[in-house]
Amino acid sequence: MIKNKMITSRDEDFAKWYTDIVKNAHLASYTSVKGCIVFEPYAYALWENMQKVLDEKFKATGHENVYMPMFIPESLLKKEAEHVEGFAPEVAWVTHGGVNQLEERLCVRPTSETLFCDYYSKNISSYRDLPKLCNQWCNIVRWEKNTRPFLRTREFLWQEGHTVHETAKEAEEETYRMLNIYKDFFENYLAIPVVVGKKTEKEKFAGAEYTLTVEALMYDGVSLQSCTSHYFGQKFSKPFDVKFSDRNNQLQYVYQTSWGTTTRMIGAVIMVHGDDNGLVLPPRIAPKQVVIVTIKNTDEVLQTANNLVEKLKAAGVRAFIDDTDKSAGFKFAEHEMKGVPIRIEIGPRDLAEGNVVLARRDTNEKITCTVDEVNDKVAALLEDIHKNMFETAKKRNDSKTYVCKTFEEAKEIIYSRPGFIKAMWCGSPECEVKMKELRGMKSRCIPFEEEHLSDTCVVCGKKAKHMVYWGIQY
Amino acid sequence: MIKNKMITSRDEDFAKWYTDIVKNAHLASYTSVKGCIVFEPYAYALWENMQKVLDEKFKATGHENVYMPMFIPESLLKKEAEHVEGFAPEVAWVTHGGVNQLEERLCVRPTSETLFCDYYSKNISSYRDLPKLCNQWCNIVRWEKNTRPFLRTREFLWQEGHTVHETAKEAEEETYRMLNIYKDFFENYLAIPVVVGKKTEKEKFAGAEYTLTVEALMYDGVSLQSCTSHYFGQKFSKPFDVKFSDRNNQLQYVYQTSWGTTTRMIGAVIMVHGDDNGLVLPPRIAPKQVVIVTIKNTDEVLQTANNLVEKLKAAGVRAFIDDTDKSAGFKFAEHEMKGVPIRIEIGPRDLAEGNVVLARRDTNEKITCTVDEVNDKVAALLEDIHKNMFETAKKRNDSKTYVCKTFEEAKEIIYSRPGFIKAMWCGSPECEVKMKELRGMKSRCIPFEEEHLSDTCVVCGKKAKHMVYWGIQY
Repeated sequence: MIKNKMITSRDEDFAKWYTDIVKNAHLASYTSVKGCIVFEPYAYALWENMQKVLDEKFKATGHENVYMPMFIPESLLKKEAEHVEGFAPEVAWVTHGGVNQLEERLCVRPTSETLFCDYYSKNISSYRDLPKLCNQWCNIVRWEKNTRPFLRTREFLWQEGHTVHETAKEAEEETYRMLNIYKDFFENYLAIPVVVGKKTEKEKFAGAEYTLTVEALMYDGVSLQSCTSHYFGQKFSKPFDVKFSDRNNQLQYVYQTSWGTTTRMIGAVIMVHGDDNGLVLPPRIAPKQVVIVTIKNTDEVLQTANNLVEKLKAAGVRAFIDDTDKSAGFKFAEHEMKGVPIRIEIGPRDLAEGNVVLARRDTNEKITCTVDEVNDKVAALLEDIHKNMFETAKKRNDSKTYVCKTFEEAKEIIYSRPGFIKAMWCGSPECEVKMKELRGMKSRCIPFEEEHLSDTCVVCGKKAKHMVYWGIQY
Repeated sequence: MIKNKMITSRDEDFAKWYTDIVKNAHLASYTSVKGCIVFEPYAYALWENMQKVLDEKFKATGHENVYMPMFIPESLLKKEAEHVEGFAPEVAWVTHGGVNQLEERLCVRPTSETLFCDYYSKNISSYRDLPKLCNQWCNIVRWEKNTRPFLRTREFLWQEGHTVHETAKEAEEETYRMLNIYKDFFENYLAIPVVVGKKTEKEKFAGAEYTLTVEALMYDGVSLQSCTSHYFGQKFSKPFDVKFSDRNNQLQYVYQTSWGTTTRMIGAVIMVHGDDNGLVLPPRIAPKQVVIVTIKNTDEVLQTANNLVEKLKAAGVRAFIDDTDKSAGFKFAEHEMKGVPIRIEIGPRDLAEGNVVLARRDTNEKITCTVDEVNDKVAALLEDIHKNMFETAKKRNDSKTYVCKTFEEAKEIIYSRPGFIKAMWCGSPECEVKMKELRGMKSRCIPFEEEHLSDTCVVCGKKAKHMVYWGIQY
């Protein structure tokens, strides 16, 4: 594979490679506020495609979009004790409106449980009002110390679902349903294999009964918590007084969930699929799926390019032409940097024989076919590229997933070749804290499908309760 | 027309009628932060439909979406003198991140010219980079004193286009192009007739060379500035140092535009079309276009309702069934409140003869047709409802548009029967200030098509330069 000179090799310096990609593929630009980035058109188009798919899935499962204010009065944020403890240290505070100091300061939402609960407490009265299935797409602020484009920014974009149910059973079903939508989205749209499970008590969301999570592994073996779905039970409905009269005319507290995912998915796509020539985008969410590159702008080449792009668009393919007067090699490199899944090369020599060349971004393989075959070939290739990208990432994940039976084994692995570590755990928070000594490693989740690796906890050697995925994280 | 008991009559107390509609049609809910509302599902669905149409029009004219940070450092806001003067008195200030006081306070964006200019100054270098045609959908904060749901809220949602051009001519063409897109949207989607023109110097956007505007007239004769498109020339590019090397390799300042519209469009739809039974929604943006109401839930009625809803959906109509066990009258009132353009009533008696009844929301007219005719009738009715709603509003506007040749005439009209006042103007800001004495009336715009009403200014009697639309405003 030809190495693009503008970017660092991902095996040499992964962090530098990442920022090189972000810059050279025109995904984000820094601003004068630390940790706040410009989402440039190409990254935003990627986000819009992600939103479109997820939004359809949310609506198909009965959810409606709403928009809550972004300001939360300090007193409202403080209503649920664990919740405020989890978020207060990292919120931005508005103290002045115009020239006047506010009577009560307002925080910029770090998440909106408190606002939804306040709304629900005023708008739900009977079991007939339930379930309430709401979602919102909005911006969020968390005043993080260490920031990195897409992965951890002080302001980011996300969606947050907030649902209200009559029974614990219904709410728990919703918690799992939404996690499965995320898992499906990661695997079938982003081509990213994931591990799903439950967070430990220590790692769950501030205020939840429990948290379910989708965990992905990046190219460098570092984990990324990618989406979460929380079961609240009545932990918010009690302090916020969200009650309804049930079928027996008795007042009851509602059962709630929340679930969300963010623009950090853009970071995941970069870090799972990108290579030394730039981005490699999964076809189903790529802003552009096919670029038609003219090798030489003869009338016949341009005519063929125009016919092809129209035929592809008519078939629902996101195709476009690059007929600029830059050299072919330059154009190839540019679209490789942007990760366009398929490049179609049209030059006078091939065309004389009625042929064009298709190049896949994922494998660099080139295929010659006739002009008439293009639409069929492209359709098949887009499917195959998705499948291959998923398989490649899956194989890498498998090769970077280790079983450890002792603390020493875990230590050796996390320092030499990080990845997911599968190990047994006794259930004590002390052993989780001990694991953190190893490069800050945390429990990722207790997977839904636990294996029995041994009888004893990897840290303390006492009787094991659960199998846990562990890893260092972004 | 049957008067809905839950709401005040619009002729009795228009302000009260408005808030009654907002509440009873479940559009917005108040929050504990003054001027910040919850956009409930029905209002948000309306906004999403507006977004979808506009976003397609923006993309079809070559614009790309981006996302800028919502925080603007105080020093950046202050770079363009007129701009900061216009906005600083009404911004919200963030002074703390977590527990630390910030070195420089940040304002929450009241508009994003400064951020776009900062971005463009770093990312544009050659005429080859131009034009840059960007748009963003986001939330905006302006610390207004007097607030009203949708029309004037401290936080609102909007889109803002920010474009950069090589020449003044191109930028001016863009300014007019975008205004025409808004005009088309108001007339052909919202069914709201508008007046378009140029703002006077006094009323233009803070920092613009000139501002074009779309002005609408509400049912009560009060104007609403609905969308604006600004030509900046080089007024921002100079202080922000946005330069490019031109075709002769000379450094030049770019020419810029910006244009936007907001969730106040929801308020316009309510105030132009609503009546004493609730909302009346323009079919092309109504979240639900057809409600099928079962009069009695017999097997045959339910079966017919299900067949009809599927056939309508297959034809692209946003249809749904209300087969709840509430009384037919209650269901009728509920969907009238929500402004659903067409109601289909299915009852056993009509059905025995193969018929159903269609009721239009705009005129209350009822039409009986056979089950097989429904799809065709609905398609034709949706078109006709749009047309009729536009015509009704247009006739009202015409009847509320007055020609005034003297200050006394203007005074008499604005106090007795407000509307648009067409009058000649000498061009002096003093005469505009004088007009403000009349219930705070302002110039709405100098229309693109001026009429010659008289030779002299309505205020001072000196030689007139322009014809101006005047009016009191929301």
